[in-house]
Parts: sequence; structure tokens; C-alpha cells
Amino acid sequence: MAIDRRTLLGVGVAAASTALLGKTHAASEIPASRAKRLRRIATEEAWSIPEHIEALIGIGQTSWDNLDAMSWRPVTAASPLARRLVDIDERLRIMDQLGVDMHVLSLTSPGVQMFERAHAVAMAALANDRMAEIIRARPARFAGLASFAPQDPARAAKEIERCVTKLKLNGFIVNSHTNNEYLDLPKYWEIFEAAEALNAAIYIHPRCPADTMARPYSDYEMRAAIWGFQAEVGVHAVRLMLAGVFDRFPKLTVVLGHMGENVPFHLWRTDHWFERRRASYASKLLPSEIFKRNIMITTSGVEHGPALRYAIEVLGADRIMWAIDYPYEEMPPAVTFMNEVGISESDRAKVLHENAERVFHIEPA
Amino acid sequence: MAIDRRTLLGVGVAAASTALLGKTHAASEIPASRAKRLRRIATEEAWSIPEHIEALIGIGQTSWDNLDAMSWRPVTAASPLARRLVDIDERLRIMDQLGVDMHVLSLTSPGVQMFERAHAVAMAALANDRMAEIIRARPARFAGLASFAPQDPARAAKEIERCVTKLKLNGFIVNSHTNNEYLDLPKYWEIFEAAEALNAAIYIHPRCPADTMARPYSDYEMRAAIWGFQAEVGVHAVRLMLAGVFDRFPKLTVVLGHMGENVPFHLWRTDHWFERRRASYASKLLPSEIFKRNIMITTSGVEHGPALRYAIEVLGADRIMWAIDYPYEEMPPAVTFMNEVGISESDRAKVLHENAERVFHIEPA
Repeated sequence: MAIDRRTLLGVGVAAASTALLGKTHAASEIPASRAKRLRRIATEEAWSIPEHIEALIGIGQTSWDNLDAMSWRPVTAASPLARRLVDIDERLRIMDQLGVDMHVLSLTSPGVQMFERAHAVAMAALANDRMAEIIRARPARFAGLASFAPQDPARAAKEIERCVTKLKLNGFIVNSHTNNEYLDLPKYWEIFEAAEALNAAIYIHPRCPADTMARPYSDYEMRAAIWGFQAEVGVHAVRLMLAGVFDRFPKLTVVLGHMGENVPFHLWRTDHWFERRRASYASKLLPSEIFKRNIMITTSGVEHGPALRYAIEVLGADRIMWAIDYPYEEMPPAVTFMNEVGISESDRAKVLHENAERVFHIEPA
Repeated sequence: MAIDRRTLLGVGVAAASTALLGKTHAASEIPASRAKRLRRIATEEAWSIPEHIEALIGIGQTSWDNLDAMSWRPVTAASPLARRLVDIDERLRIMDQLGVDMHVLSLTSPGVQMFERAHAVAMAALANDRMAEIIRARPARFAGLASFAPQDPARAAKEIERCVTKLKLNGFIVNSHTNNEYLDLPKYWEIFEAAEALNAAIYIHPRCPADTMARPYSDYEMRAAIWGFQAEVGVHAVRLMLAGVFDRFPKLTVVLGHMGENVPFHLWRTDHWFERRRASYASKLLPSEIFKRNIMITTSGVEHGPALRYAIEVLGADRIMWAIDYPYEEMPPAVTFMNEVGISESDRAKVLHENAERVFHIEPA
């Protein structure tokens, strides 16, 4: 399909989006200033390698009574999802059409976290090597968040060091719980220690609710993006805050997708009850202090102006990065959203690229 | 402590609140228009009777491995909480000091939902009778949400009818799950049928996460208001929407406290994935359509301007009611918040009393 590239750079975006998606967006008037070409760095972009896809499809074919296994059950090697996760050329074609400068790639959820320990360690290293090759070939178009196997915290810490010092990757991703455990347990803290020492952010990406909370999320196809994901990552994030992770690692940066997985909207109440029961918590830091110092959020999968404006008001525009969530979400609506949403031009630049450059050590264009 | 009553009616509220609470609020300039005396109806005000408190304290003294039982463990008959829940005179004194016109009372969480069936049915009836007496004695100061025992849906439907037609109570309250089941199960739908037929709203109040999702919420004192409550009620509300409850009962009104228990902030994403997978869901209604037709939210325990403004923008001021959450929260900050928060005067009137009058059939003053 031929797309007038100019329209997707900020002028007449609503019409272009309609053409691409066959659905109508509100056709607001776009001020000339917004047509200015800002660099676009998308920060939660799923990717995979054939070996990983094959292993996840294998999990789907087991009778494992687990919500993530259920999610992979319908996927085959012939599924469009499987192709789009590995196809770099198709991804680049769409990026070019839309003026998306860079994808920060990450191994698709649940990463290596459903494999046994040795398999997980090996798969993470393989995927990280392949990711580094892609980035070396096109350093202006791709950056990458590396994987590690929380199943082996000591090896994970070593892989974190290798990925930063040798592979020059930009940060890390972990898909919430591992074997129903969260990273607040002290046995996992050497992972945070390594990441903090290397100034590498850790993105906590969703997977379905842990077995230990799965039952209410198991009906009505609600285990994933419609409701389960935010419950899983939200409880993980709150556990990290209350356990004192950010007291112990004051320079650690954690990233939450999907406009913060509902934690920001509840932040006043979380602060309030933290203050009322300070003595109960290992952390000495108010949750909102942690949010403004240690946590970044992204817009992945949430193209909602009121939610973005709320986040800017409560957390500050310095704490928010743009993300698409490709290929689970399509690129055009995410581009259109950032062109059209009513925020200041300086905030738009922070969200679209400046914060990602700072947090993920991406050279400014 | 002597309080200048005028200050709490809208003039110099910040100073009065400081005096009461010993903490400083942002001392914004209050426009003269806000000093206008609006009726104040607080809609989620916990209350109890000695028999009920005694039974809950008894639950706390068991070894039941349940998060609500754990919450009641430290409570004794001598606890200030136990006194404040039953003491109507103390409550009225504070209401008078602050210009709070009316409390919509409800039996404190978990209501009758942790008792065996016959005990639950009898306790609900007893509490409802007592509540009706209090309201008959002071009809200008109290309204009430009656209890029912979901453990016996047929008896619950009969009690709903009795409470509306005989006791003239104003609506109903249920504390989320009952024996780890949610009200989306069809066996509970005769409760909704009775409530809809009588035009009586049902408030879904928090209790701690169900045993079937309790584990991740069991550490760091996070089971209740700081994080667990919103997880429990949020999953309940989403289950009701996706199960088709509001397709079957188009005139049913459900109330969610605590600024909507995080569901409103996620509503765009919930809608988006509902649209992408419409065929998977029994409901034909977009979650946001349900929110604007069948769901009310309250401000209980959330004195946060950005959150209230977000809710007004996304849901509309007609869908939001004021609440304090007394005695779990103190009254002065809730009064101060509604005096000071930056919203329009017409929205302030809707939130403070007009919506409550409509939804709970309270005669306008």
C-alpha cells in the first residue's frame, strides 16, 4: 500500500491512519509545530529468534496448566506473529513508511523464564548475541534490551556485565515473575547490583499472572493485555518498592510499560497508606519518591491522551518514554497518537526520544 | 479541640485541616464561590453493630490462613476501630464540626461474607434492621446500604426486596468475593435481578484478595488499601463486565470506590483488547460503554486532584460520588479535598451530593 510519507510525519495523520487501518481516528487539526520532525525511538518492541519461537511453541503444546502456556497454545511456526517477531526487513519497511527512527528490541515475553535453568541461560546468551549483530548492522535503527535468566542469579549478573561491556546492549528486560517468584527476594538482588553498577535499566515487561494468583484471571480471556498483565506487573512493582530494593540500590532504574501498569493512578493512595504504616515497611522511601527517582514508564499499548497527561502531571515528562509494543500492536496508531496528543512540544520531545536516549544510552541524533 | 466551623465550610480550609491533622496541605487561594455551602453526602462510610464486630474479632482469633482473617487479628473489643464503627454520637459530632450533612452507612468489610450461610443470612438481617432504626431516628443525617448474604442467593434476593420495600434502605453493599467466588457466576445473578428490578445500586466494596490470588499480596503488609484491595475489586469488576452481567441487566448500577479501583485508568486498553477479541467475550458492550451507563465510582480514600480530574474527563462528573471511608480514613482531609480541588462548581455539586441523591434515592435538601 502506498502511503504519503509526509502525512505520517505529522501532517494529516488522521487520514493516513484511516488508510492504513481501515478505521477512523478523530481528525483533529494538527498545528504546524507538531509537523516538525522529532526523532522517534520506540522502547518496547518485541522480537525473537527462530530457536526461541520454537521453544515457546513447544511450551504451548504441553499440558502445562499455566496462563502463559495457554497463550502460546494457538501459535504455530506459520502464525503471522511468529513471522513478524523475527522478520527484521518487514519491521524496517514499516518503520520507514512511518518515520519511526529506532526500535529498542527485546526478546518477546516470557523470554527465557519458562525454561529450565541451563536452557534459559543458553537461550538468553544466544538471543543477546543475535540482537547485538542486528544492532551492529544498523546502529541508527536498532538498540536492544538484553535478556538474562533469573533462574540462575549469579550467571544472570555475569550475562548483564557481558551484554553491557562486550555486546554494548542498552539495558535489560525481564518478564515479571520467574517460577512464581518476584525479584524482591534477596536471592535475586545480585541482578540489581550488576545492573546498577553498569547504569543499565531493567524493563519489567508483562507476562500472565503467576500460578499463585492465576485463578481469578483464568476466565473470560482476561489473563493478558485486557487485565491480567497489569495485575502481574503491578504487584511485582509494588513488592520491589516495599521490600526496600530502591533503598539498597538508589541508582537503579526500573521501567514499567503500559503507562505504568496502573501503579501511577493509585500512587496517592499507596503513598498515603505507606505513610500511615511506615514502621511496617523495609523501605524508607515513599512510593512516589521512588517513582520520581528510579522508575520510568512507557506508553506501550496505551494511546490515551488523558492517561498520558495524568502521567505527565503526576510523574513528570522526564519519566515517560514512547513505545509501540510491535508486533502485538500496530505501529501507525502509536505514531498518530504521539503526533496528535495534546501535550507541550518540549514534553513530546522528551517522550519521543530524549528520555530514551538518556535511560538507554542511545547517542543523540 | 475547638474548630472554627466556618473554616471547614470552605473558607481557610487548609489552615483548619492543618490544625486538625497536624500536617500541612497546600494552602491554595479558595475562590469565594467555593465557600458556598454545598450539601455533603459521604457515600462509603463504614459502620457496624457489636454482634458483628464480635464475630469478626472471633474470625481474627482463628488460625484461618486468609488475608482478611489476618487483618482482624490485632483488633479487640477495646480497639479504637471497634468503638468508632459503632459509635453514632461520636460520628455525628465530627460530622457537625465539619459540615458533613449525611453519611451513607454500610456494614464494615467483609460484611457477612466470612460467616457460614445461616449465620450470614441472620447477621445481614439484624444489621439491616439496626441500620434502618438509625436512619429513621435521623433521616436528614443518615442513609444506608444494606447487606445480604451471597452464600444464599435466593435469600439474598428476598432480603434485597425487604430492605427496599420495608426498611426503605438506599442500596446495597457487597465486599467483593464470597468464598473465593465472584458475582459473575450465574448462580448469583438473582441478586442482580432483584437489585435491578428495585432500582437499587450495589456497591462493591474491597476486601483482601481471594485465597485464589492471595500469595503475591501476602507479603510486605500489602494485602489491603496500599495495593491488595484494588486488585481484588478490579478483577471482580472486569469479570462482571466481560461475563455479560450488564448485557443481561442493562439498568443495574454498580458502584466502585477508591476512584474506581484502577479500572478507569486502564479503560482505554481494556476497551482496545475487547475490540480486538470481541468474539471471545459474552458481553457485547464495550467496557467504557458499561462504565458510562452502569458504573458509578467514588472518591473514597483518594484525595488526589489529578485522579479526580482524570475520572471526570474520562467518565464524566455524573459518574462520581464523594466518599470519606470513615473511620478507616479521617473526615477532615476528605472535606478539605472537596473544598479545594480544582474542578468546576457544577461538577463539585454533582460529586458532593447530586449524584448520590440520584443513585441512592436520597431526597434533595
